[in-house]
Amino acid sequence: MAPLRSWLPIDPRSHFSLHNIPFGIISTSADSKPCPAIAIGDHALDLRAFTAGNGFAALSTIQPHQSVFSESTLNAFAALGRPLHKVVREYLQSVLLKDGPFPDVLEKNEKLRQSALLPLEDCDTHLPLRIGDYTDFYAGLHHAHNVGVLFRGPQNALQKNYKHLPVGYHGRASSVVVSGTPIQRPRGQILVDPEKGPELSPCRKLDFELELGCFVCASSDLGESIAVDDAPDYLFGIVLMNDWSARDIQAWEYVPLGPFNSKNFGTTVSPWVVLMDALEPFAADGIENDVPSLPYLDERGRKSNFAIDLTVTLRTASGLTSTLTKTSARNLLFSFPQMLAHHTVGGCPFNVGDLLGSGTISGKGKDEKGCLLERSDNGKIEVELEGGERRLFLEDGDTLTLSGVCGQGDGALVGFGECTGTIVEAVR
Amino acid sequence: MAPLRSWLPIDPRSHFSLHNIPFGIISTSADSKPCPAIAIGDHALDLRAFTAGNGFAALSTIQPHQSVFSESTLNAFAALGRPLHKVVREYLQSVLLKDGPFPDVLEKNEKLRQSALLPLEDCDTHLPLRIGDYTDFYAGLHHAHNVGVLFRGPQNALQKNYKHLPVGYHGRASSVVVSGTPIQRPRGQILVDPEKGPELSPCRKLDFELELGCFVCASSDLGESIAVDDAPDYLFGIVLMNDWSARDIQAWEYVPLGPFNSKNFGTTVSPWVVLMDALEPFAADGIENDVPSLPYLDERGRKSNFAIDLTVTLRTASGLTSTLTKTSARNLLFSFPQMLAHHTVGGCPFNVGDLLGSGTISGKGKDEKGCLLERSDNGKIEVELEGGERRLFLEDGDTLTLSGVCGQGDGALVGFGECTGTIVEAVR
Repeated sequence: MAPLRSWLPIDPRSHFSLHNIPFGIISTSADSKPCPAIAIGDHALDLRAFTAGNGFAALSTIQPHQSVFSESTLNAFAALGRPLHKVVREYLQSVLLKDGPFPDVLEKNEKLRQSALLPLEDCDTHLPLRIGDYTDFYAGLHHAHNVGVLFRGPQNALQKNYKHLPVGYHGRASSVVVSGTPIQRPRGQILVDPEKGPELSPCRKLDFELELGCFVCASSDLGESIAVDDAPDYLFGIVLMNDWSARDIQAWEYVPLGPFNSKNFGTTVSPWVVLMDALEPFAADGIENDVPSLPYLDERGRKSNFAIDLTVTLRTASGLTSTLTKTSARNLLFSFPQMLAHHTVGGCPFNVGDLLGSGTISGKGKDEKGCLLERSDNGKIEVELEGGERRLFLEDGDTLTLSGVCGQGDGALVGFGECTGTIVEAVR
Repeated sequence: MAPLRSWLPIDPRSHFSLHNIPFGIISTSADSKPCPAIAIGDHALDLRAFTAGNGFAALSTIQPHQSVFSESTLNAFAALGRPLHKVVREYLQSVLLKDGPFPDVLEKNEKLRQSALLPLEDCDTHLPLRIGDYTDFYAGLHHAHNVGVLFRGPQNALQKNYKHLPVGYHGRASSVVVSGTPIQRPRGQILVDPEKGPELSPCRKLDFELELGCFVCASSDLGESIAVDDAPDYLFGIVLMNDWSARDIQAWEYVPLGPFNSKNFGTTVSPWVVLMDALEPFAADGIENDVPSLPYLDERGRKSNFAIDLTVTLRTASGLTSTLTKTSARNLLFSFPQMLAHHTVGGCPFNVGDLLGSGTISGKGKDEKGCLLERSDNGKIEVELEGGERRLFLEDGDTLTLSGVCGQGDGALVGFGECTGTIVEAVR
């Protein structure tokens, strides 16, 4: 399929091609009240201004719902459901299409262009949805294996349940922040010297985790299960997610109830939610599971992972940037529909805006690790950076950036932009 | 101190004496829109109607904030902060006091009494606060010890971290429900026969957990720590909490990231939040910790647990009720201020309405166990009930009720009422 072309100049390498149309929440210095927008090339289309300027006049199905574009989160838009997401996304594509059916809506409407089409660099982005509950899974098989080898040896690397169900735990919704938010190095109890007992100390093993996040767009009741075949209807879209981790705090606190303060000091998501419809052309198999799924998890061969190329870079205080990781989001043993089916099999209720994390995504290769714990062998092997610097874990002033994109650089990229955060010094 | 007496007839054994004044959310068949109320004897005082009838006219400090009593949750009232909770509670006590200073407000105002003072039996109660995040701790030392003995033997019963920090994990806020909500037996993956692998099955080891829940009434920012000395200012009040648990699902799923579907099918809280001020006369030491606290957890002898007498009863489908447990809420190794200080030491942010669970409260004696896992030795020793029935775990049709009260039965009880739920059959 030839790439769609827009009348708006878009760099062919832009993550936000006409094939994408991701949704987010923006504000500007001129209008500090956050509102929904889409990203297109190096612009944001402010959907509150677009609505106010009758941009949706030609789309009768959205008329009764236009107030969703005046909200300060995407929850109300998400709650409209996937058929309406598709209608809105395709309409906005057609409005932006070169020689498209609606030239008068925006292309030839200078007043609306001026009020609604804003340079991305002038926009602040905000958390795209109000998150009710956040769950983090552990579906990155290679990551789980590598971490298991570190802590239990190669014979017992994976726990017995691992391939039977998507292992997950409840995370802290209040600590999910949007890309760009500084991340303060956490303090916590750390067992440095077992003779002395634990001490309260700034984390010495601060790590990132390369993940995908998936927002939920429909609710379910207490006691209700979502079938794996119905689960795609509950998925709004995907973001990149960095589940910052304090490995030394985690090592001391995590038995027997799992990670806690080692995770709840910050989890960063990218600002632009790529809708499930935009990702559909890139649907792919994940890692083949050599353990047969129970029927409630059986997708019967449906491709419900995605061929997203993922990159992790580290910019140190020196200003030099090094690539730490290049891998693919296909490195997952379970898909988001499987995660949602498992999560609700016992009747756990869901709300619009709930967030599912994939778990850390690592490939098999040395340069495909989704965290420094794996890359540095838990602090034993230094990672060499540009300019001769080295890292075992993250240092103050380091900026860690996740990036992800689907497709080739031909003006048809469906990308996520960046998910970035800079480490700032701990409070003493 | 002699008990305070009200002009309103109150049974001296009522949990809702004039010394209590707990806050909740009610609706009635005449007015289905939920609103704040207090419980007093066998009545609820509808605070929306009380406000509308100028009940707060004499209380100038609350005038600018009266809209909090038109909300459908207590979040806005909680957010006013502890000094205002105290003012409102003491004012309502004085309005209800026999020969008190404000006879014209309610006692001699028949119109307002008729609109605002409702028989409790005519009221439906609702979840008292909108919960952002819910965290469950594990501070019941005897419970942790008993469970540790079951799974790791007496030599390794407590993990090494246990006495150094309040162990906790993030729970599922969406699954917290108010007392009276039926609890559907969850399905889940269970490893019955290791040869065959896990199967999807209704839980066969359904359990209750006797806990206290504590609601938070002030927010903190990402990166901010709450000092243990400041933590009481962040606490709104306490409820009883039943953290229903599926032991067989938990046994298979919980490594390495902790409990998940074994918990998120329902957690029940009592409807009436007993304010911290009401509990202050019953402040008591918890379990003495023989491991010195790090300074950030050191309360320097302050009594911040509570002498709450706790009872658990089980009514079976036969209609007969048996007492399973009698113990005290003093059986906690850490207090809520310590939990909050630990939770935020790394910078985890809090919102008004967040809920902290104490962890299961068990005493040392056989009849003081806070769950059936302990009581039945993980399904090996039958618990004898009234009428000759026996239980290892909960059966469909069982109604489990937690109850808790401070003080003697002299018309000055500060109690929680009941936290109850009936088990209904699993979906197949």
